[in-house]
Amino acid sequence: MAKVLFAARQDRWKVWELPLRKAFDALDLRVDLVTAAKPETVHHIIYAPNSDVQDFTPYTNLKLVQNLWAGVEDVIGNATLKAPLCRMVDPGMTQGMSEWVTGHVMRRHLGLDTDILGQNGVWRKRVLPLAQDRTIGMIGLGVLGTSAARMLANIGFNVFGWSRSAKNIAGITCFHGVEGFQSVLRSADILVLLIPSASTSANILNAESLALLPKGAEIINPGRGTLIDDDALLAALESGQIRHATLDVFRVEPLPPDHPYWHHPNVTVTPHIASETRPETAAHVVAENIRRAEMKEPLLHLVDRMDK
Amino acid sequence: MAKVLFAARQDRWKVWELPLRKAFDALDLRVDLVTAAKPETVHHIIYAPNSDVQDFTPYTNLKLVQNLWAGVEDVIGNATLKAPLCRMVDPGMTQGMSEWVTGHVMRRHLGLDTDILGQNGVWRKRVLPLAQDRTIGMIGLGVLGTSAARMLANIGFNVFGWSRSAKNIAGITCFHGVEGFQSVLRSADILVLLIPSASTSANILNAESLALLPKGAEIINPGRGTLIDDDALLAALESGQIRHATLDVFRVEPLPPDHPYWHHPNVTVTPHIASETRPETAAHVVAENIRRAEMKEPLLHLVDRMDK
Repeated sequence: MAKVLFAARQDRWKVWELPLRKAFDALDLRVDLVTAAKPETVHHIIYAPNSDVQDFTPYTNLKLVQNLWAGVEDVIGNATLKAPLCRMVDPGMTQGMSEWVTGHVMRRHLGLDTDILGQNGVWRKRVLPLAQDRTIGMIGLGVLGTSAARMLANIGFNVFGWSRSAKNIAGITCFHGVEGFQSVLRSADILVLLIPSASTSANILNAESLALLPKGAEIINPGRGTLIDDDALLAALESGQIRHATLDVFRVEPLPPDHPYWHHPNVTVTPHIASETRPETAAHVVAENIRRAEMKEPLLHLVDRMDK
Repeated sequence: MAKVLFAARQDRWKVWELPLRKAFDALDLRVDLVTAAKPETVHHIIYAPNSDVQDFTPYTNLKLVQNLWAGVEDVIGNATLKAPLCRMVDPGMTQGMSEWVTGHVMRRHLGLDTDILGQNGVWRKRVLPLAQDRTIGMIGLGVLGTSAARMLANIGFNVFGWSRSAKNIAGITCFHGVEGFQSVLRSADILVLLIPSASTSANILNAESLALLPKGAEIINPGRGTLIDDDALLAALESGQIRHATLDVFRVEPLPPDHPYWHHPNVTVTPHIASETRPETAAHVVAENIRRAEMKEPLLHLVDRMDK
C-alpha cells in the first residue's frame, strides 16, 4: 500500500486529516496516511514548505511531492528535491481569492468605509460611481488573476489584464510585455497584483511603476509581499500619488505590530487570508494526484522545474 | 413646440438640465424645457414627488408625467393626476443598486469590518467562507431585485428569490406566495429587501417573519423604509436573532440623529444611496418617453393605475 506522509505544521493535521481520508475513500484509493515515517518508506509527501521536511535526500522512493500551497517559490529552489513537484490549484482557493478581491474592490469602489466608520448621525448623501466608470488593472492572468478579473468584469468593471505573454480572455482587455504593463498602470484606478508565483518579479511595484499610475490610484495586493517595494509605496501614499493600499501579503508574516503599514491611515492590512486553501476542495486534488502518481498517469499542476 | 416642465427641488435642476438637453438633442427632439410655466401650457412634467407640484388640476393639457424616481407610491394616490404616469427605470440606477447590494453582501460575507476596524497590529488569521456556502434571500424580483440577484449568483452565492407571483429566472431558485416567502426566510443567511414599490407591503419584516430567519441572519434593506417594523428589528438585534442590519431607507429621511439605528453597534445606516438615479443614463429614458408621448407611441414603464 502506498505510504503518504503529511508534512506540515502540527496544527494543520487536524483540519486536513478528515478531508484527505474522505477524498481517498471517494476515489477508492487505499493509502497509509501518516504524519511520521521512515523516509525511505514514503512514496508521496503532502507538503507545506514550512514543515520540518527540508532535506529530501533520505526520501529515496518518492513518486510525488504535492504542495499544499499555491506558491512553490519556497520549495522550487530546494536542490535535494528530485521527485515531481505539483502546485496546489484548489478550486476553493481560486474562488475564495476572487471573492476576496471582489469584496475589497467593492469596498473601495463604493466607499463603504464612509458608512462603516461614520455611524454618528450625519447623513452623508452622495452619488456612487458605477463600475463601468472604473478601470481595474489586473497584474497577472494565471488561474487566480483570470478568475478574479472575470468576476470583476461580470459586475461591470472595465478590466485591463496583464500577463508576460499574450493572452486572450473574453471580457478582459489583455495587455502583455513591458509596454503593456505600462499601459495598464497608466489606466488603472485600482491595481490588483496577482502574478503567479512562477513568474514573480520582486519589486515590480516600485517608485518608477507607482509613478505611472493615475494620481490617487489604489493598490490591492493579495499576490506576494515581494511584489512591492515597501518604502516606495509608503512614499507614494505620503505624497497622495496612491490614495489607498489593501495588503494581504508581506515580506515578513505575521506583519510585525510596529510595521508602518499597520499605522498608516490609508493602508489596510489583512492577515494573508485572500488565498487560503480549503481542505474540503483541495483534498480532492491531492488524492487525485496521488492516484495519478500511483497509476503513472500525467500529474495535475506539475511544476516545470525550468520555471525556477 | 412641446413644453416640458421640470418639477423637482431646485437643487436638482443643475444636475439634470444638461443631461436632459443632451438627451433631447440626441433624439432630434425640439422641446421647450422650463422650470416654471403657466400650468395650462405644459404638455409634459418631469416629476419628483417632493416638488412643489402637488395639485395637477390646473395642468389641463398634460400628455405625460414622467417620474424621476423608481418609486411612485408618493404620487400614485394623487387623485388630481389624470395623465399617464411613468415610473423611472434607469439602467444606471439598476446597475448602481446591484453594485450597492453586492458590495454590502461582500462586506458582511467576508467580514471586512474585522480588517477595516482592526488595524492595531493584531494578525487576525481566519479562513473565509465561500459564497457557495451562503444563501442570500432576495425578497422582490422586479427589475432591481432580479438584477441584484443575478449579480450575486454570478459571484457564486446560493440565491433564493421571492416574488408575489411565480417567476423563473436562470441561476436563481425562485419562490412565490406566502409559503414561498416563509421558505426563503427559513433559509436565508442574508436577506435583501427589494420589493418593487407597486407591491410594497408595510412591515413585511416584522416580529413574526424575523423569527423565521435562522438565528444570526442578517438584513440588508435598500428597498423601502416601510418594509420593516423598526421596533421588531431592534428587538431581534437585541436578542441576537438578527446579527446585523444594513439599512439604506427609512420612514423619515434623513434618519434623525437620535434614532436608535444610528447608535446600535450591529446596524449600519447608509444615507439612501443605493438607488440613486444617474442623470446621464436616466435622461435618455425621459427624452424617449416624451418623444413617445408626442408621437402617441406606447409609453415605457407606464404605471398601471390598478396597481395602487
